[in-house]
Amino acid sequence: MERKVVGIIGLGLLGGSVAKALKRFTEYEVIGYARRGEVCSAALACGAVSEAYGDAKLVAQKSDILVLALPPDTNADIFEQLAPHLKPHTLVTDVASTKGRMVKRIYQYLPNHSTFVSIHPMAGSERGGFEMASDSLFTDATWIVLEDKGNPAYSEDDAKLLVQMGEAVGSMVERVSLHEHDHLVATISHVPHVTATLIASLAGESNKPELAYKLAAGGFRDVTRIAGGNPSMWKEILRGNATEIDQLLLELTQRIQNVRELLTSDDDGQELEKYLQKAHDYRNEYLQVKESERRLL
Amino acid sequence: MERKVVGIIGLGLLGGSVAKALKRFTEYEVIGYARRGEVCSAALACGAVSEAYGDAKLVAQKSDILVLALPPDTNADIFEQLAPHLKPHTLVTDVASTKGRMVKRIYQYLPNHSTFVSIHPMAGSERGGFEMASDSLFTDATWIVLEDKGNPAYSEDDAKLLVQMGEAVGSMVERVSLHEHDHLVATISHVPHVTATLIASLAGESNKPELAYKLAAGGFRDVTRIAGGNPSMWKEILRGNATEIDQLLLELTQRIQNVRELLTSDDDGQELEKYLQKAHDYRNEYLQVKESERRLL
Repeated sequence: MERKVVGIIGLGLLGGSVAKALKRFTEYEVIGYARRGEVCSAALACGAVSEAYGDAKLVAQKSDILVLALPPDTNADIFEQLAPHLKPHTLVTDVASTKGRMVKRIYQYLPNHSTFVSIHPMAGSERGGFEMASDSLFTDATWIVLEDKGNPAYSEDDAKLLVQMGEAVGSMVERVSLHEHDHLVATISHVPHVTATLIASLAGESNKPELAYKLAAGGFRDVTRIAGGNPSMWKEILRGNATEIDQLLLELTQRIQNVRELLTSDDDGQELEKYLQKAHDYRNEYLQVKESERRLL
Repeated sequence: MERKVVGIIGLGLLGGSVAKALKRFTEYEVIGYARRGEVCSAALACGAVSEAYGDAKLVAQKSDILVLALPPDTNADIFEQLAPHLKPHTLVTDVASTKGRMVKRIYQYLPNHSTFVSIHPMAGSERGGFEMASDSLFTDATWIVLEDKGNPAYSEDDAKLLVQMGEAVGSMVERVSLHEHDHLVATISHVPHVTATLIASLAGESNKPELAYKLAAGGFRDVTRIAGGNPSMWKEILRGNATEIDQLLLELTQRIQNVRELLTSDDDGQELEKYLQKAHDYRNEYLQVKESERRLL
């Protein structure tokens, strides 16, 4: 059965970029839902979608592939309403950055005739909204297709279709188990986000915030950049993955305690330098992985 | 008394950039010391200095202004050797990013005929060395001149001279008391550096570091960038400001504990969102301060 119509629920930065990228790089017909009329108009005007609706049910009824592109909890909430209106054999997917709590709810609402395979395009920006959406947001980004092989709602054929979609829009595709995913994204996305907000707060709640900002150089700028992200969206992301994040934040406080000991140890800083050298090497290994990804393209 | 010769002790990224910037933007004669002969050759070849020596004493003997541009402890060590060789009325300064421990030692060695006023140009890069030095490193950067008004070695006239020097090389000059300085730089530079190394280590010491690096997007890249800095240099910086950093790291663990509570609180995430909103606003205030600095130029 060939799937022709992709319906995108939510035309923000990610949903809008999926629409634009599919329009540019594939033969799919793309339709979309946005709550605000001006977003529908903008998406229609630039050709990102061929049809746009302010009622998500109308999109669900026409879609062969349904992409949930709202924040995780909102995806689950809206899918509860849409599930009874799906066409038979719909492939449901989502582009949220945390899965645990949301996926449990989606499985619960999913009709037996349809399948669900989750994806996570690792791309974004601290500035959201359709006006920031781009058909090249996924170029060179990692596009994760999540496996959940034991689950009856999971389909290996549909996972392959989503792998092809990721490749078509210029991403590097990785396949990861749903189980591993949330711990990994907590490590490389959610906990870094928390530390960015902590560093911004330390400066903002210091005795002289304005002077602190003036003295701040590139290090502060980069470490805090993602603290500028949308608070309401990040609230959902972080709470949707609270178990994994909590565990890593506990580990982080233990690691901070270790650094505090190294700062004042009477070994003339030898162990502190070893610690800094290791962090330096991890950062270089990360750069090498990214560099070899670029060479593969 | 007019001062004509600036001697720079250490021609790494900062010292080399001071040399190049003074050469380009001022009338000073610039001479320099570097341990490695090839750095002396490179600095001479590009005209950054008119004389270069592998013996720092030869630079100290000829300088009207002596700029210590090595890591903090190394500055203090070498100054102990150079102090007896200073010309009368030398203005001694340094460009290190931590002051506390180093400044105490410099005061101790400084001859009565000379003065010491510390500066801190807030510029740098995770990649060091003379080959990265640039005459525009200080353009648009903040250049702090540190006041220590009670101290007999401090000179207000010399502080003004260093203010003029900062303005000449294109920096925005701020005057801060020595006392406030180390707490502020711990907040906006040293603790952010520690968190960058912590996040790099969390990923590098996870079960699947290579997969973590592959999944990492722009947030991880930016939060960890400064973890790529020189471990031996950062060891000295962090230990030179250990008291302030330790206090802030303790505060950080308390703030992490607070975030952990917000993650799982039963208020539907309202307090977490407020926290994220505040961090978002601090980040925007920081951007506004930087933006208004740019407009002033």
